[in-house]
Amino acid sequence: MNHPLRRPTAVFGRSGRWTLILLFLGLTSFLARAQELKSPDQRLVLDFALQSGGVPTYRLTYKGKVVIKPSKLGVELKNAPALTDGFTVAATKQTTFDETWQPVWGEVKSIRNHYNQFTVNLQQAATGRVVLVHFRLFNDGLGFRYEFPAQKDLTYFVVKQEKTQFALAGDHKAFWLPGDYDTQEYSTVTSKLSEVRGRMKAAVTPNASQTTFSATGVQTPLMLKSQDGLYINIHEAALVDYSAMHLELDDQNFVLESRLTPDAVGDMASLQTPCASPWRTIIVSDRAGAILESKLVLNLNEPSKIKDTSWIKPVKYVGVWWEMITGKSSWSYTNQDNIKLDSIDYRKVQPNGTHGATNANVKRYIDFAAKHGFDAVLVEGWNTGWEDWFGKHKDYVFDFVTPYPDFDVAELNRYAHAKGVNIMMHHETSGSVRNYERHLDTAFQFMNKYGYNAVKTGYVGDVLPLGEHHYGQWLINHYNYVLTTAAKHHIMVNGHEAVRPTGLARTYPNLIGNEAARGTEYESFGGNNADHTTILPFTRLIGGPMDYTPGIFQTKISAYNPNNNSFVHSTLVRQLALYVTMYSPLQMAADLPETYEKYLDAFQFIKDVAVDWDDTKVLEAEPGDYITIARKAKGKSSWFVGSTCDENGRTSKISLSFLDPGKKYLATIYADGKDAHYEKNPQAYAIRQQTVTSKTKLSQLCAPGGGYAISITESGK
Amino acid sequence: MNHPLRRPTAVFGRSGRWTLILLFLGLTSFLARAQELKSPDQRLVLDFALQSGGVPTYRLTYKGKVVIKPSKLGVELKNAPALTDGFTVAATKQTTFDETWQPVWGEVKSIRNHYNQFTVNLQQAATGRVVLVHFRLFNDGLGFRYEFPAQKDLTYFVVKQEKTQFALAGDHKAFWLPGDYDTQEYSTVTSKLSEVRGRMKAAVTPNASQTTFSATGVQTPLMLKSQDGLYINIHEAALVDYSAMHLELDDQNFVLESRLTPDAVGDMASLQTPCASPWRTIIVSDRAGAILESKLVLNLNEPSKIKDTSWIKPVKYVGVWWEMITGKSSWSYTNQDNIKLDSIDYRKVQPNGTHGATNANVKRYIDFAAKHGFDAVLVEGWNTGWEDWFGKHKDYVFDFVTPYPDFDVAELNRYAHAKGVNIMMHHETSGSVRNYERHLDTAFQFMNKYGYNAVKTGYVGDVLPLGEHHYGQWLINHYNYVLTTAAKHHIMVNGHEAVRPTGLARTYPNLIGNEAARGTEYESFGGNNADHTTILPFTRLIGGPMDYTPGIFQTKISAYNPNNNSFVHSTLVRQLALYVTMYSPLQMAADLPETYEKYLDAFQFIKDVAVDWDDTKVLEAEPGDYITIARKAKGKSSWFVGSTCDENGRTSKISLSFLDPGKKYLATIYADGKDAHYEKNPQAYAIRQQTVTSKTKLSQLCAPGGGYAISITESGK
Repeated sequence: MNHPLRRPTAVFGRSGRWTLILLFLGLTSFLARAQELKSPDQRLVLDFALQSGGVPTYRLTYKGKVVIKPSKLGVELKNAPALTDGFTVAATKQTTFDETWQPVWGEVKSIRNHYNQFTVNLQQAATGRVVLVHFRLFNDGLGFRYEFPAQKDLTYFVVKQEKTQFALAGDHKAFWLPGDYDTQEYSTVTSKLSEVRGRMKAAVTPNASQTTFSATGVQTPLMLKSQDGLYINIHEAALVDYSAMHLELDDQNFVLESRLTPDAVGDMASLQTPCASPWRTIIVSDRAGAILESKLVLNLNEPSKIKDTSWIKPVKYVGVWWEMITGKSSWSYTNQDNIKLDSIDYRKVQPNGTHGATNANVKRYIDFAAKHGFDAVLVEGWNTGWEDWFGKHKDYVFDFVTPYPDFDVAELNRYAHAKGVNIMMHHETSGSVRNYERHLDTAFQFMNKYGYNAVKTGYVGDVLPLGEHHYGQWLINHYNYVLTTAAKHHIMVNGHEAVRPTGLARTYPNLIGNEAARGTEYESFGGNNADHTTILPFTRLIGGPMDYTPGIFQTKISAYNPNNNSFVHSTLVRQLALYVTMYSPLQMAADLPETYEKYLDAFQFIKDVAVDWDDTKVLEAEPGDYITIARKAKGKSSWFVGSTCDENGRTSKISLSFLDPGKKYLATIYADGKDAHYEKNPQAYAIRQQTVTSKTKLSQLCAPGGGYAISITESGK
Repeated sequence: MNHPLRRPTAVFGRSGRWTLILLFLGLTSFLARAQELKSPDQRLVLDFALQSGGVPTYRLTYKGKVVIKPSKLGVELKNAPALTDGFTVAATKQTTFDETWQPVWGEVKSIRNHYNQFTVNLQQAATGRVVLVHFRLFNDGLGFRYEFPAQKDLTYFVVKQEKTQFALAGDHKAFWLPGDYDTQEYSTVTSKLSEVRGRMKAAVTPNASQTTFSATGVQTPLMLKSQDGLYINIHEAALVDYSAMHLELDDQNFVLESRLTPDAVGDMASLQTPCASPWRTIIVSDRAGAILESKLVLNLNEPSKIKDTSWIKPVKYVGVWWEMITGKSSWSYTNQDNIKLDSIDYRKVQPNGTHGATNANVKRYIDFAAKHGFDAVLVEGWNTGWEDWFGKHKDYVFDFVTPYPDFDVAELNRYAHAKGVNIMMHHETSGSVRNYERHLDTAFQFMNKYGYNAVKTGYVGDVLPLGEHHYGQWLINHYNYVLTTAAKHHIMVNGHEAVRPTGLARTYPNLIGNEAARGTEYESFGGNNADHTTILPFTRLIGGPMDYTPGIFQTKISAYNPNNNSFVHSTLVRQLALYVTMYSPLQMAADLPETYEKYLDAFQFIKDVAVDWDDTKVLEAEPGDYITIARKAKGKSSWFVGSTCDENGRTSKISLSFLDPGKKYLATIYADGKDAHYEKNPQAYAIRQQTVTSKTKLSQLCAPGGGYAISITESGK
């Protein structure tokens, strides 16, 4: 390997010698000259330079094409001089790192973490303060972060705004969500950057809690495609003790700039040295599939802090949930609209007769789960308080330990465990996070007592106290507190309405899922765009798995609730494909047992598909158009293929060259039926079987809003 | 007793009949006519009337003198029509109540709670909403509150502002503090109401956290004296799930109006029906002492919710505290200024050599406490994190369970308990309340484990999250959460920098103390005014006891710290008097053991004085000038008298008629010495003894900033 930095660099602590070099070279000429770092494969090149006035900048190219034009770095502070200019380079340092690590769960068995690192020690002469910028250049992209070492004149400080720029080379095609401090539950807009402003208003659809901030503000992960064929993804990694980053677009110059999430008084982050910002990430390739394959965000997180991870296991589950989402049953036990937990006696009120989490119904799901080999049954609406849980800014909204009278927590857990099934806990907080924290230990002890090993958390509605946001430092700290506290109790966490993930599951692998985007539930709230699942893996999933809850076979919601005219914008077969294309160690079969019983042949794929993998191959991919992925089941020889396409339909052509040469396999192909169409004919499907080998090539028609799924098992000999 | 309401009134639920009466009388004439309620002794008269436009008003007179002129009532709501006008009277109701109850601790053995109540059911025709106002008229004043019953169109609502008026009859003399959402640690200003505006700026002295809101805003308890000799005190009782009330002064018309404490977005309180506001209280008399004797605020609180109160006991204590306040020693163990609790190893850092809470020093205090009969030793600075605890907006500032290396928590508690002494826990939160709540259960378990039975809490500095205030609903909820959680652990609470009390100790008698005003510590921070302790019992103490920490004998702070030129604005003898005049079940002897050893004769009074009482007599009182009180020790025949006066000095003339007739007593009189003066000669004192009876009259000279103290014990026979 070549030395990653072409020019000799000083080492920290030897600034005297460095000063001499500076004098020798001439300071002015040095400042004008960039320092260069190359990726291990030499394709990516990072240039760092101080612009006039001592403004730090970086530039990124890929195979000679400009990914990021010279872009400014820096941070503005509250009540202190900005850390944006007046810098000199006190020292630089380069290192190379190469490790391979095994995730507790994941898309592949082992992950290579290989990068060249360039660290620049920036000194601000006027204030004597020092900031370090660490650049890590991987073959698939760049990560960089600010480090603030402990120093006399920088101990406690408040970030007023981070001024990190991403100056793009042109008016790229973007897959974007409106920038918002509280939600990512928007439909992705696909447009040129220059069109963001014009399409913003229509993009901001109503949500239970939302705080947009600008006519050109967008969220990360932001997926971009340049006219010269580069795929670029901008996000962040290791969001800890900081607020989430959004991007403010200068739509004249196509410069994106960081926009952090403020607290109630407008502060972006309160920090104490030594500390560092999250990593800012730019994944880049001329092949779309490489974006999906990238492990850059995971690699930029710290190794697991949980030593014994034996209790962390991927989960395939069903749940008493879709029936509430569709309006077929209710979370609440009564129809009262004004509940006080400390005074109501539910045994004395009139039940509404629509409660979903009843003993009988839950047992029905447990029976179904046991019969079909699922690990768990999620039960929502089991605990008291659902009558007026939402939108009331109610502090004491749930206590997380008191079941409704028709939910026998001890008996149901006994019943489930006897059948080898777990019940998955549900903790909706309604945004009342103090209340949740007050009950957290007791709630987790309650879970331990009854044998729950995973919790789905929820943060629907405005955060209490008002003024704080879902993506602000206060809440980031809360989510991580829940995660680390759960780990002490050996509890896995699936956080809904929490901040979108940033690879933190490497450090805390009990974070087995997040929502933080429009999930399948929106199919019951008016529908997701037909191309939604061809985009999410390029955007939301870059940070970590999503509990998308696929598997809806009854695509007309009115079949469950005559008052609900929504329909699922997907063919039935594509619902199967999502178990492969939407990677998650936590996969739900979201539809109702009685529906699955009607389609047991198609349901077989959901029963068979793995939720943990030894290997992953992206066979086809184009954001907004299609994704085809093959994955090898963990510890097994079987493979699963999923393909999802947009509203136009297409023919997918794949090679099964990923199979072991010389072996024979049986492929069961779940394909859209003739004339299948996500809107007009979603439930048409055809299942066929054929013998395949590594030499097999398949051509498969995908209906509009359709796709296909294949399970491939070694046929022996 | 006469019927308290002179006119017949309808009873709830009979509005049909009431409507008939209205028609008969004519609605207009009814609206113009007030309804009247008298106190049990007939001296106080409340008039309620609807002004034109359906605006509810009340008026209060005392012996025919106007206390409160017709004043508006009502509440403005956020995003809903105001509850301030458009009302009709749907019904009224009167009741009489008379009970006598025994406080767990207090100034008297039993308390009579005797009032006539008038409730008006106000209906707002345009909205159909109902608000009740309850007036309770005692012999010593008025309490009234808004009740919001559960109803269809009023379930969850947000108070935008409470519009309760207190229209005063003139330009009274006022004893006031600048209105502030975060602190009451100001010197009281004594001025006419018309002078508030002009004196506000100078009154707002710097504080660790402060948020003033107006040029004429003042705090409660507000003490007033009219030119015609009425003493009036305005405060609130039973502050639960609401924000603290301040008063905005219209200094043209001398109308005070409620000003609640906002949250980060400006909301004053988020409520759910059925609910009620705190009681707004007006204590009134033509005798100043009656204000001090009033139990109105306690009576308006709910009876104790703690069933077994056997573990709640008054406490007389010393502490490793004044030596830090004066700067003689330090809370912190090192001189580092940038600590992270999760990474620092204190065993590896250089101690600063000034740490106060060392094993040796704490044992010295324990020895002293045991020798002189004190119940407890407060130890501050025992736990890690004090190096940079303040003003940093630091979230994880303390963990409340980790002692510094030189504080052996197990050994010191063993040592103390063996000598019959408790160590008093200290939990400074630095305003980081979420962090405190996260550690609360563990911290209380830690206390239980080691045998601590009381905690002094602290909230110095801005509240986190920023935007919330010490006196806002969010924090009110927190303080009560700490109190009720502590009760579960049988822990008594002494809350510093928390909201000023509102009689809640009746309901939760484990709230044995609060600060919420300038305590003795300010004698080391520049000094309290010489008349400070002649005012506090009329203001701050109206809501409940204060941990004022008297007993400073070494009045020159420079004796402990050459760099501190402050001095105590009190004679030594007045320091003794405060144990009687500043009622508290929690009394500290705040000075250092080595100082007390030098003045053992004077110290004897502190050793002897009771902290719980069977009876109390206010012998002399004039706010801002002097207070002389006699109290009878709980379950004993001995009495203690204390007298405090302002900077002018005076001669106190009292009768000991409170003593049992026919008995002989020995009085030990601790008097200011000749030429004693709080500034020039504070330590001059003289102790004499004499036999006294119920017929004895005493005349005692009080030095400027001085006073006297007397212990009276039955001499037998």
